[in-house]
Parts: sequence; C-alpha cells; structure tokens
Amino acid sequence: MTVNLGASRSYPIFLGEGILPGLGDETRKRVTGGRVLVVTNPTVGSLWGREAERSLAEAGFAVYRAEIPDGEEYKTLDTAAHLYDRAFEAGLDRSCAVVALGGGVVGDVAGFTAATYMRGVPLVQVPTTLMAQVDSSVGGKVAVNHPRGKNIIGAFYQPVLVLADVGTLRTLPGRELRAGIAEVIKYGVISDAAFFGWLEENLERLLKGDPEALTYAVEMSCRIKARVVEADETEQGLRRVLNYGHTFGHALEALTGYRVYVHGEAVAVGMVAAAKLSVLLGLLDEESYSRIEQLVRRAGLPADIPADLSFEAALTCMERDKKAQDGRITFVLPEAVGRVGFYPDPPADMLRRLFS
Amino acid sequence: MTVNLGASRSYPIFLGEGILPGLGDETRKRVTGGRVLVVTNPTVGSLWGREAERSLAEAGFAVYRAEIPDGEEYKTLDTAAHLYDRAFEAGLDRSCAVVALGGGVVGDVAGFTAATYMRGVPLVQVPTTLMAQVDSSVGGKVAVNHPRGKNIIGAFYQPVLVLADVGTLRTLPGRELRAGIAEVIKYGVISDAAFFGWLEENLERLLKGDPEALTYAVEMSCRIKARVVEADETEQGLRRVLNYGHTFGHALEALTGYRVYVHGEAVAVGMVAAAKLSVLLGLLDEESYSRIEQLVRRAGLPADIPADLSFEAALTCMERDKKAQDGRITFVLPEAVGRVGFYPDPPADMLRRLFS
Repeated sequence: MTVNLGASRSYPIFLGEGILPGLGDETRKRVTGGRVLVVTNPTVGSLWGREAERSLAEAGFAVYRAEIPDGEEYKTLDTAAHLYDRAFEAGLDRSCAVVALGGGVVGDVAGFTAATYMRGVPLVQVPTTLMAQVDSSVGGKVAVNHPRGKNIIGAFYQPVLVLADVGTLRTLPGRELRAGIAEVIKYGVISDAAFFGWLEENLERLLKGDPEALTYAVEMSCRIKARVVEADETEQGLRRVLNYGHTFGHALEALTGYRVYVHGEAVAVGMVAAAKLSVLLGLLDEESYSRIEQLVRRAGLPADIPADLSFEAALTCMERDKKAQDGRITFVLPEAVGRVGFYPDPPADMLRRLFS
Repeated sequence: MTVNLGASRSYPIFLGEGILPGLGDETRKRVTGGRVLVVTNPTVGSLWGREAERSLAEAGFAVYRAEIPDGEEYKTLDTAAHLYDRAFEAGLDRSCAVVALGGGVVGDVAGFTAATYMRGVPLVQVPTTLMAQVDSSVGGKVAVNHPRGKNIIGAFYQPVLVLADVGTLRTLPGRELRAGIAEVIKYGVISDAAFFGWLEENLERLLKGDPEALTYAVEMSCRIKARVVEADETEQGLRRVLNYGHTFGHALEALTGYRVYVHGEAVAVGMVAAAKLSVLLGLLDEESYSRIEQLVRRAGLPADIPADLSFEAALTCMERDKKAQDGRITFVLPEAVGRVGFYPDPPADMLRRLFS
C-alpha cells in the first residue's frame, strides 16, 4: 500500500505476518547513509530487537540501539534530548535513518527526534502494537507531551517507510490489543459501514489474535487513514474526522492523570459519548447508536463516562485542546454508521446531559 | 518581494525603512486567530517592542510578550521549553501566531517553537539585525543548539511573513552590522558579480548605516537567497551554495567555544579560507581571490585563520558537520566572483596548507 503525498513525500506501508526480516532490504532501498539508530523500549527490544537489527545489519547498515523507558510519561522533550545524544554518539548524519521499533510512544518520540535532528533525517516506522499499526505510525504525526497537554510539541513529518508485521501482535498484552481495536472501530464509524459490519462479525477473531483477521483489520484501517491523510496532510479540514472520539477522549485521559485509561480506552468512551451527543442532537438514530455502543462493549472496552467526572472540568479541558480555535470546540459526530460530520460548539446543556 | 514555494507555503518579504508600524495589518491578513506571542530579548524589546506590539494590538490582536536572554548560549531546547509554557499560558492555539522580533537567536528559537508548538503555528519574522534580515529570517531554517553542535535540533519551517525594517539597524552595534555584511558579501561571491562590484563601491555607505544603501543590500541579499531557497527548500542540493564560508566558519566557531567570533566573523574567515583553497586547487585566479579578501578586510572583518588553530581538530569538526555525509565534506568553492561550485573531499594536504 502507498500513501500518496506528492513526489518527495510518498511512502509505502508493508503489511503482513512474518515480514520483519525484510526490514533491512526495504530500508536499504530508501536510505543512502551507512548507519541506523533503532529506537525501542526494553520490552519490545528484548522481543523483536534482535530480529530487526539482524535484518538491518545484513542489509549493510551499522546498527545502533537506543532504548527509552516504557510508558506515556516518558514521551517528553527530555527523552528526545537523550535520543539526540545517542544519534550524535552513533555518528548519524542527515543521510542516516532513525528506526522506530515499538508502539505509539516509541513511534512518536523517535519520530519527533527524526523530524528535528539535523532538521530531519529519514524515519522508518516499525509499529509493534495494534494501536501503532492502525494509527500512530501512519499519517506523519510525531510529538512529545508537555506538562500542559499531550502531543503539544510535535510536527508533521512523514516516514520513508512503514513496516507492520502483525506477527509482533502475538506478544501484545490483551489490554493493548483491545485499545487498538478501539481505533479500528473508529475507522468503521467514520467512513466504512461495510467494514463496521465485518467487525461486528469478526470481532472475536481479532480478540483471539487471528493473524488473517488482524491483517485485514490493519489493512482496512491503514487504507482509510491513508486516504484521509492524502486529502489533508496537515489537518486543515477533512483530517479532523480522525478525531472522532478524541475530543472527549483526550479530556478523559487528562482529567484522570493518564493513569486510569490507556489512549484507546479513552477513545472508546469518547466515541460512545459522541454518538450519544449525536442522538441528542437528532443527527443519529438510536439503532446506529446501539450498534456502536455494543461493538465497543463487546471488545471489552469501557463505554461510560465515569460518574465522578466533572462536566465543567471536561469542558475547560476540551476548550484548551490543540484542535480548538479561539476556545471553540468542533465535535466529530456520527450521522450514520460509516459517516460523520463536523459540529462546532454544540449547546453546553446538551453536553451536560452526557454527564450524570 | 515573494518567496515562491508552492501554493500553501509562499510568503512575502516586506522591506524598507520605517515599515514596522505596518506589522499588525500585514499579520492580520495572514493570521486568523486572536492572539500573538511576541518573542524578543530585553535589548530589542526595549528598543522596538512597544512599536511592534502597538501595531499588532491596533490590528485587533491580544498581544503577549515572551523575553529570552540575549546570546547564542540561550539558543537551547530549554529556552524553547520556556516558550512552549508562555505560549500555553497566553492561550495560543493553532490559528494564532508567534512573532519573532530580534536577531538570529530570537528568530531561530522562536521559529523552532512555532514549528513544533501544536505541530506548527503561523510564524512572523521581524528581523532587527542585518544578519537576520539578509539570512536567518528568510529561507525557513529554524533551530536550537545542542551541546554537541550548533543548529543540531531544528526544522525547515517557512514563515507566513517577513517584515524587515532597516530602520531598526540604526541601533545595531557596529560589530553586529559588520557581521551581517559578511553574509551580504557572501551573496555577491556565490551568485552576483555585479552586486559584488556594487559592494566594493558602496561598502562605506553600509558601514555608516546609510538607509538607502542598506535597503538595497538587504533587498539584493534576500532576492538571491529567495531564488536559491525556491529551487531547493530542504537543502538537497543547490541550497548548499549558501554554505560558502560556513564549513570552515562553523568549525572555527565551535573550536573557539563560540566566544571569540560572532557567526558572521567566522563566516568571513571561512570565505577567505575557501577562496584560498580554490586558488590552491587551480579553480580561482589570484586577482579574484584578492578582491574577496580585500572586501572582507575593508568591512573590518577578520580574514585569517588564527595561528593556534589545530588543523586536525578543524578537520574532525568539519567531518562531524551536519552537512557532511558519511564523514565526507563538500566544500563550496568560488570559481570566479559571482560563481561557486561543489567540491567533495579536497585533498587533506591542500587543506593543511591553509593552516600555518
């Protein structure tokens, strides 16, 4: 699959089971320099680091590894500063690549480092979580967090190559798998009713880690995301459809200190809340709402706004979101399964009714 | 004057004496948000801050100011982190602008902040030094330094507007004016023999701060730089001509701890050294070399490699430059006044002869 962004910034996505050994050759085709810095965390590094690095070495690269601690709390400017040091020590110049081997945190912070080290070096994304394979590794968003908010510091920076081996999902904890499925469900809701139907029928296969089902789900998700990103690389308009479930979701994550929900779980709650808001505004019928809610619950994902969450705090948080403009919040709301619209500033009393 | 980089990234350069009061209106035409963060330093802020901010306020912006300390040693990730805080406190969202009011340090670090805050907000460059007006504010390079080297962390990020008021040069210290003239001389050497001739005739007017002469010099410099940047925005090839004098220059700055030379002075030494190397390689005649050397000296700029500078240290430093590839150094060498070529890896013994 190719993400078409004009001559110099298009890139391929390789997707399948057991394709990690091809990493070196595919990187070699796109990177002229002699060195690569593999950025990973201790968990992923011990599981898949050796295989990835062997492939890169066999393709003629001098391979260096930088490990960053596991966890969203390390997605910081300090961690990026550490990676600049490692890149410099490894002698990386502009012709050399950063290879992000891991989940969203690794991809985002390694991506931010690649985007800004020497004003940009080639970036290879090797996502090893479902969330990263269907979302964060594709689309060119890289970032680190700021004490005031998630992904506040970042860039739009496209990889030269994405290689997603669904075989790496075998070692993924169940909670992480389900969190990724939340984003997969999102793609169905925002733009593909048939894919949503497929998910309703094949959810159990995904939850059991069936490689064929996973490959199909990742492929469909990447296709939808690539199409959206091609139309709007830097989030001027259409790309905001990908934000479905995220306006609430980000607020929920922030207000619970990023400790209660992983990102996909917060998005699951946000998707159901946005669908509910849609019903309240008369945009969506009850049956479609139920299908969304049921699929989320069947995936073992949370669907309810916690009873003790303050409406006022959530509202303030959403107004401060980086997608807000002059404090105005635009919601992405489903109008049917497979179609969403943009709704700026819904009435506060409607929003309040989602909280109980 | 317009820098043409394709539909979404082209931007105008406004240039003249006394045009600072037009800042607000020109910004308003290009920035939809309600707030701007003016980044400056205490010196420039006290001289020009009020005039700039009044203009922005009259155009309807809520204006916030962030001051950073004066000096290259503050062009760091820590300073950028401080500016993210200030941007957040000021409530800047993606539709709001960062206005860089100052010299190269302010422009580079404010530019880096604008490039990475919320993945990029509009950047307005208001350069107040000759160096910034002819070089750093135009072309979209933004960066901060890393303990291992200058501008190691950065991005290519184009402003929405550059407004260069040569009136602000009245308050510029003489040493800073001369440093800017080094870059002006560079433009003559790399691509315009007639402009070089004009500089030979009008150097004293520039040194005295004649506004008409300064306006012409800034205009010609920006035209040449814009033409180069239009042809090669992200420094894949041609843009490297702008690096004339900088390969040596960067090494000289680094090896003297950034305390002996300001950037333009180091570039002056580097330009003369590169011209000398050109003569040694049989690429340039002695007379052209003398014209370059003489103009540099007449401008009150240093032209000699210091006797105690180690050749080996300089070589290592140049091999580590971010423009090197796999340790190979490409020199930009004059072939005539007004024309340069690229010369990779000149023989080490030739290089050594420049040191005595």
